[in-house]
Order: sequence, then structure tokens, then C-alpha cells
Amino acid sequence: MAIERQRAVVLLSGGMDSATCLALAARRDGCESHALSFDYGQRHRAELDAAAVVARQLGAREHRIMRIDLGALGGSALTDLGIAVPEVPGDGIPVTYVPARNAVFLSFALAWAEVLDADFLYSGVNAVDYSGYPDCRPEFIAAFQAMANLATCRAVEGRPIVLRTPLMSLGKAEIIRLGSGLGVDFAATVSCYQADASGAACGACDACRLRQAGFAAAGLPDVTRYRGPVDSG
Amino acid sequence: MAIERQRAVVLLSGGMDSATCLALAARRDGCESHALSFDYGQRHRAELDAAAVVARQLGAREHRIMRIDLGALGGSALTDLGIAVPEVPGDGIPVTYVPARNAVFLSFALAWAEVLDADFLYSGVNAVDYSGYPDCRPEFIAAFQAMANLATCRAVEGRPIVLRTPLMSLGKAEIIRLGSGLGVDFAATVSCYQADASGAACGACDACRLRQAGFAAAGLPDVTRYRGPVDSG
Repeated sequence: MAIERQRAVVLLSGGMDSATCLALAARRDGCESHALSFDYGQRHRAELDAAAVVARQLGAREHRIMRIDLGALGGSALTDLGIAVPEVPGDGIPVTYVPARNAVFLSFALAWAEVLDADFLYSGVNAVDYSGYPDCRPEFIAAFQAMANLATCRAVEGRPIVLRTPLMSLGKAEIIRLGSGLGVDFAATVSCYQADASGAACGACDACRLRQAGFAAAGLPDVTRYRGPVDSG
Repeated sequence: MAIERQRAVVLLSGGMDSATCLALAARRDGCESHALSFDYGQRHRAELDAAAVVARQLGAREHRIMRIDLGALGGSALTDLGIAVPEVPGDGIPVTYVPARNAVFLSFALAWAEVLDADFLYSGVNAVDYSGYPDCRPEFIAAFQAMANLATCRAVEGRPIVLRTPLMSLGKAEIIRLGSGLGVDFAATVSCYQADASGAACGACDACRLRQAGFAAAGLPDVTRYRGPVDSG
């Protein structure tokens, strides 16, 4: 007897967390996975290219890139070219915060999940290295789930779309170990806030520093491609 | 001493409910109002043109139209040209439902409200004539507010953005009377699901029937522009 696979929408940024999340959905949990990325006016497109590669590598059923105009609202160094990306850690919520980004992304994912009649919505959101972003906390995710349970026709029919955030309480080293065990090709992922067009990382921003520390703590080689002087030796 | 006006983001579809909602925000409540419309792949553009006119008429500080790709997800007669708009009332949730639309729209409005440091977010959502859409119910709005209270930096600082849905429990006739009293030019608004390019209404769809009944119950002339044979007499 054929068993129907459960279906999932997976938010995929092209970074290492969401790649690991897709591996969990597709490989560990066996879901038919529909990956969703956003072109929201971020400074570089390399992470979208990375998302496409990762989706293919991990066997996503399909990958969509949705264009949204979040950058037009301004207010973040990730989308507003007038705000510099910081290279040293600061206090409080950093300027790389994009207002209400997870609310917007999760709402789109919810809409697509309803269209696909998907059972799950996976997000690689993480509260450990969350840099103070309010919408990366477990209480935010719980509140989003409660809202989602009232927002969709599936939920009205008693079949709510369940939000899964399997990385929520994991440190970067644990995520890297988990992803490595599931065959995630971290060299294909981009974390850097100011990666170049090829996806090569700066090695200096918050995201790069977290990633370097993660590989070190996991005891695994840092496979990240960094830009800089080419060694011609 | 100058009193600083409170600031609001107002969702503005170009229909009569959201026009009345903008009038409440700008004229009754005296808010500096920033109107937000979405170009989300709806069948006709007339309602976006109507929104621009209404925003100007009611003194919005600015009006932005945000392009989003909701139609690409499919699943609704309002955005999917493969699904016919029904002309007779049906049972259950109608095919004009756009999945999770209010979650998506309110999330964008929340993001903009945070960028603007706005105090309020107005939505003309209405539970009385809601046609069974799950995301038009007061319990959905309450859950969205709870989520929003955890999603933004303003909220973390103890200054949450407050969602106002002043039309929630009003019938169409009450909305029409309220809007008329605040000087809303309903002739400029478009409700019809299949308005033509000029905004002229079909007179047959769910939205047209509700609107006609509303004017009749309010005891006010129906100022809607209907298409049809021109009277050359």
C-alpha cells in the first residue's frame, strides 16, 4: 500500500540554518518539500543563487523565489544601502534587523502552504544566535502559530498547518554537526551580510564571525569561500 | 505647545470599507495617515486607481502601492484567471478567498508601521459580511495583535503597534452611513470583483450585491458606477 508523503513548505534563505532545516524536512522527516526564498531587496543576490543550489542538492520538490518589496520600506542595513553593515558587535538590536521580516516571510509561507495543502511549515529560525531580533524568539513563533491556526481554511477544517522550528534552541556548532550528518553542502551556503556576487564571504560581519566560531566549535573544517587576495603561490 | 499627531498605517484596498477606515483614522481620530495598498496580482487594477484617488481625497500623508507576488501562489478566483468568479451565492468558503491574505497584508503593514514608528495600524476588516473568510474574524485579529506584540522592536521597548479594526462588527449599511458622515466619496471606491478598467462594476458578483443592499439599507442613493448599455436617450 502506498503511503502518501507529508508535504512541507520550507523557508530557504541560502544560509546554513535554512539549508539544515530543509535537510531535516526532506531527509530526516521524509516530507515532500517545497522551498521558498524571498527576493526582498537584500544587498546581494548570491544567497538566492545559493538557495537554488541547496534546494536541488537536498531534493526539494520545487523552489520558488518570491519577489517582495520589503526593501522599499527602508529601515535596515540589509536592504537600505544608506545604512552601513557593522563589522564589530554592538549593543541592542542591530541595524541589520529587517522590520517584522519573519512575520512577513512566515505569512507568505503560510499562504503557499494553504494553496499546496501542506501539513508543515519549516523555518530555520534560531533564538541562540538571534542577535536580539524580536521575531526569532520561541514566544514569537508560538504566537505566529496561534495566529496561523485562525487564519487558514485548513485550520477551520481542523487541520492546522503546523510550524516547525527544529533549530530554535541549537547553537551554531550543533546546527553544523546536524547538517553535516544529513549531507548538507555548507560550501554552497552563504551567510555573509556582504557576500560578493559569487557568494564569497567578507569574513568580518556578525554572520561571518558566528559561522567561523560554529565550525571551530563543531570541530569541522570551515568550508566557507572567503574573498581576499588570491594565493598565487 | 505643539501636540504631535499620532501616526497610523492604514490598509487601503480602494473599496468602501477601507476608504471609511481611512476616514476614521485621518478625520475622526486625527492621525497622520500612511495608506498602503497591494498590487498582488488581482484581476483588475481599477481598485488600485481608486485607492490612489481616495487617499488623496481623505488627506493621507502618503500612499504606497506594494507589489507582491501572491497571485503566483494560485488558489483564488481573485488572482487565478483559471478559476471563475461566482455570480450566485454558494455554501462554505468562496473561491474568491485568497489564502492567508490578511496575514500577509497585515504583516507588511506591521513592517511599515515599525519603520515609520507608527502608533496604529488600521484595517477595514469586517466580520459581518465576511463571506466565511477565516482571516476576517475578531479572533484572528486578536491573535495577529498578540503575534505583532512579539514581532517588533517597538513592542520590545514597551510601545506595541496597536491594531485598530473599527468596522469589525458593523453591517454594510452602518459602514456606508459612517463613511458618508465623514465625507467619503463612495463613487470613487471600487468593490466589484470584476470591475472593468475604469472601475465600473458588474452589479452581479457577491461584492456588488452586498454593496447594493448596503446603500438600500442605509437609505442612501447607490452612487456606484455600473457598466452596461449606455442610455443614449
